[in-house]
Amino acid sequence: MVYLDNSSTTPVCRRAIEAMNKTLCEDFGNASSLHMLGIDAESYLDDARASVAKRLGCESGCITFTSGGTEANNMAVFGAVSARKRFGKRIITSEIEHPSVLNAFKALENEGYEVIWLKPDASGKICERDIFEAVNNETIFISLMYVNNETGALQPVEAAAAAAKSAAVRFDMPKKPLVHCDAVQAFGKIDINVKAIDVDLMSVSAHKLHGPKGVGALYIKKGVRISPLMYGGGQEKGLRPGTENVPAIAGFGAAVEDIGNISQNCTAAKALKEYLLSKLSEIDGIVINSPADALPFIINISLPGHKAETLLHRLEAKEIYVSSGSACSKGRLSHVLKAQGLDAGIIDSSIRISLSRFNTNRDIEALAQALKEIKG
Amino acid sequence: MVYLDNSSTTPVCRRAIEAMNKTLCEDFGNASSLHMLGIDAESYLDDARASVAKRLGCESGCITFTSGGTEANNMAVFGAVSARKRFGKRIITSEIEHPSVLNAFKALENEGYEVIWLKPDASGKICERDIFEAVNNETIFISLMYVNNETGALQPVEAAAAAAKSAAVRFDMPKKPLVHCDAVQAFGKIDINVKAIDVDLMSVSAHKLHGPKGVGALYIKKGVRISPLMYGGGQEKGLRPGTENVPAIAGFGAAVEDIGNISQNCTAAKALKEYLLSKLSEIDGIVINSPADALPFIINISLPGHKAETLLHRLEAKEIYVSSGSACSKGRLSHVLKAQGLDAGIIDSSIRISLSRFNTNRDIEALAQALKEIKG
Repeated sequence: MVYLDNSSTTPVCRRAIEAMNKTLCEDFGNASSLHMLGIDAESYLDDARASVAKRLGCESGCITFTSGGTEANNMAVFGAVSARKRFGKRIITSEIEHPSVLNAFKALENEGYEVIWLKPDASGKICERDIFEAVNNETIFISLMYVNNETGALQPVEAAAAAAKSAAVRFDMPKKPLVHCDAVQAFGKIDINVKAIDVDLMSVSAHKLHGPKGVGALYIKKGVRISPLMYGGGQEKGLRPGTENVPAIAGFGAAVEDIGNISQNCTAAKALKEYLLSKLSEIDGIVINSPADALPFIINISLPGHKAETLLHRLEAKEIYVSSGSACSKGRLSHVLKAQGLDAGIIDSSIRISLSRFNTNRDIEALAQALKEIKG
Repeated sequence: MVYLDNSSTTPVCRRAIEAMNKTLCEDFGNASSLHMLGIDAESYLDDARASVAKRLGCESGCITFTSGGTEANNMAVFGAVSARKRFGKRIITSEIEHPSVLNAFKALENEGYEVIWLKPDASGKICERDIFEAVNNETIFISLMYVNNETGALQPVEAAAAAAKSAAVRFDMPKKPLVHCDAVQAFGKIDINVKAIDVDLMSVSAHKLHGPKGVGALYIKKGVRISPLMYGGGQEKGLRPGTENVPAIAGFGAAVEDIGNISQNCTAAKALKEYLLSKLSEIDGIVINSPADALPFIINISLPGHKAETLLHRLEAKEIYVSSGSACSKGRLSHVLKAQGLDAGIIDSSIRISLSRFNTNRDIEALAQALKEIKG
């Protein structure tokens, strides 16, 4: 099997599976129990929290575990907007966000919030100046993704943070607009330092980096308060109640520890991408939709004249797995490529190749060979 | 180890662990992916959905998977109230609900809803008549638990459903009030048929029945519409977006299949409870806080003069695990026993013994012997 759909999900690494199994059968306690089994279970949470925090460059206390990236994004959007609602009505995001941000903003738009939808340029990137221009004295919240999940295009998250800060001074705001970053596709693939970027909130997920499904985290900057999405027992400082998902969280921590050297992984992915591009250049008519400086783990291409779904199934017949758009949009025409202004023919024939640190040159060769055969 | 804290959480059964491991490493696909790996992953969801539905006596289409009982309860409460907000302001629940229902209602009370808080009688049960009397023409929602998590007291859920139906007729309501039941402590322990009880919504959880943490489900009656708690990709018919947690859901399904014969399990638990009560009757001064007809899996007792936390730790020293109150209320004085009108001395010295189908007479003997020694 040649698995090149790692931005949809990844197989769980050995280390994470071991951590999970230990907490499923042996250390199975409820982390909120007052007895030893509870305390033992809690220690897995502490370790995982430290692992995630370290990779984000923050303290453990800033990490709240969630049931995944979608919940982290919803918690950030609704939690921040609810906490700041009395300060204004404008909220800002881009047209190329993941559905979990996009549709949360649409729900807020229906509630009466004024949403500014930033458009990407033809390369798929949001323009820094557009962000600065969008922020007015009524602005309470900005959400911008780190890396687009369909094209790998890196977004100017630092500019969003800077725009919020400068607006707070310029308009003499009682509260700086909160800035959120959906870093689900970036976390574990490029070095992230939340303090350097200086966002207030950042979402990450485990199953995109060889951790288990069903677990993610929201970074919340020290001192920033948001409203919870749910109520219940006081777990996760009351921000995310419910019996802590110890096995998945332990697996998340182990998967983060298993990443190794991010720069080296990134260099390896760049080499794989270059190799793929050189192989693809031998095939007539292939269009590369990802910008040249995109995250090397995601390469979006089109084979005009070939419908994406057909391509996907012809590759699948050779046990090569890629995706048409993202798994979360399940076959619908990509809103990301549409926002980039690409032709319907390009969008309709686009597939996403997404790498992980476990892919090799042989995977690339198999894909290139298969695409050559399909193009005939 | 003598584990008698099964209402906090349970060790995951072998069958569930096997199902989870299969989906962590082998069938690891994203269930929303269009290729074979996605379709294979989806089949685990289908099987688990059928298993849960069968145990509830409903169709698979009525089951929405969530990240656990807390999310299912929040989704039911907020989703139902949001869907019905234009029809009235009164919502009804009891004072002895789980914090995930209780605190969701408090949040709605803060938003301006009129909450009727039903009080239990001295045995810990809500009175049927009180429910009927609480429903007025402004009522949109009732939530009542199946089994109390601290005492095992069975609640009159059918009466709640009947009260909503009769009020709809009596007041000529445009919409019958929606009725929700938190069945987290009942599911898998007593036979439940949602159609016979005729509630609109029911929450269940996996980790109370030897399934994994991090997964639960909400039963939604055919034709009933509630608002989602989160937005995102269209997973779970748009009601619960986010990459489906295939391993946990597969584990949930396997755990449900592993339950076996519920009546037999229940009879065995009753025998264990009787055995425990006979042993406890040999110890002076022990008070039984659970009603005689409670779910046999939960026995709440007090040893006046002995603080619960001290009891818990002295039992723990003998590797016997019980809990003081519920894990979710982490050491706070029980709101359930307080609502029952018990004395502070009784509440302060109360412990919960909670059984599963894997407990034996030897566990009971070890506990009784230990309590005898503690009482001196």
